[in-house]
Amino acid sequence: EIAEAMRPLAERLLTGTRVLLTAGPTRELLDPVRYLGNRSSGRMGYALASALGHLGAQVVLVSGPTALPVPKVAESIQVETALEMRAAVMEQVASCDLFVATAAVADYRPAEPAARKIKKDAEELTLRLVRNPDILAEVAALTPPPFTVGFAAETDEVERHALAKRTAKGLDMIAANRVGGERGGFERDENALTVFWDGGRRDLPMMPKTRLARELAALIAERYLERHVAST
Amino acid sequence: EIAEAMRPLAERLLTGTRVLLTAGPTRELLDPVRYLGNRSSGRMGYALASALGHLGAQVVLVSGPTALPVPKVAESIQVETALEMRAAVMEQVASCDLFVATAAVADYRPAEPAARKIKKDAEELTLRLVRNPDILAEVAALTPPPFTVGFAAETDEVERHALAKRTAKGLDMIAANRVGGERGGFERDENALTVFWDGGRRDLPMMPKTRLARELAALIAERYLERHVAST
Repeated sequence: EIAEAMRPLAERLLTGTRVLLTAGPTRELLDPVRYLGNRSSGRMGYALASALGHLGAQVVLVSGPTALPVPKVAESIQVETALEMRAAVMEQVASCDLFVATAAVADYRPAEPAARKIKKDAEELTLRLVRNPDILAEVAALTPPPFTVGFAAETDEVERHALAKRTAKGLDMIAANRVGGERGGFERDENALTVFWDGGRRDLPMMPKTRLARELAALIAERYLERHVAST
Repeated sequence: EIAEAMRPLAERLLTGTRVLLTAGPTRELLDPVRYLGNRSSGRMGYALASALGHLGAQVVLVSGPTALPVPKVAESIQVETALEMRAAVMEQVASCDLFVATAAVADYRPAEPAARKIKKDAEELTLRLVRNPDILAEVAALTPPPFTVGFAAETDEVERHALAKRTAKGLDMIAANRVGGERGGFERDENALTVFWDGGRRDLPMMPKTRLARELAALIAERYLERHVAST
């Protein structure tokens, strides 16, 4: 407690700020045992939750299923599906100043999940999927919106896709990374990001996710405080 | 080493026996980041691999992605998809006496996995799935087959489905459990099984998976040795 209190003021930039952060994958159920998932490990999100906490923020973590221990945050809410994540976010967002969406939310879910295990009689199966709600866009469209930070995991044309996503959804910042390549991204211990905001960008080169999270948290705090000062 | 050597003979029933055991889920890739998965944690399979090892068996473990530490076995092969699991099994099976299939192999995989991340432009998406090979049935149909043990995870009519599966695939034994209920099965620490073989059955009531694995390993050893003696 004393050590915390004696930290330089510069390190506690987000004291009094409430951050809602989503992390991990979602699972969209086909039947009681099968699901559509994705390779998000939750590592980057959990590290960022910790890093924002170290800057003094009160972090509310909404997380899909991961194999990680829950980081020390003000509140932790575990969910499974995109619809559950959306419900938790919408319940929490009004009391938060910042929204950081690191979760890899499934874009689609099965249209008609089966109550019983699907039998494998057929040689082929057609699965009808419907779009999930876009939680990040919904939050950014709130009046007033929190300061919103999104992530873009892309396999190609990373910058073009990230810039388009930031504009289309009306985000304050977006952190983009390449996935599916040989280094970085999902299920790795290190990653590189390029962060874009209105009129600016910064490259955070390949480094361990814990250090990357600290650098990104500092950058988010810097941009958030500049905006906050400008609007008051 | 000395402690091992001094164990009662009854506890080392499977010395000199080579066991091929599959465990965990498989993941069937839709694109570089998305997959079809299932709720198998691998816990029961890993516990059974350890229990069979304690009976003296040389265990070759072929495992899909789990969050568990790899148990102490003679050989461990990590795979992701059903096709990778099949390739590993077919490479190892000729040198094994027993085949124990605890893995929850995906019955279907996407017909045309995408090399790039699928964009979420469409409101609906139709996913065409094709049947995966039935590794267990293929192994049981080999000449000569190993002593084969299958698992059946069912949400309803557990006994009927399990008996039908044992007969249809020509298995020596099948261990059946109910999933999707309130207790036991996937992602739980305890489970109950009913084991069926030609002319017999045994109920293993709800207990921790590690103890259940020891009881099942002993039962497998008993049935295998009876068959082995009968055929020599």
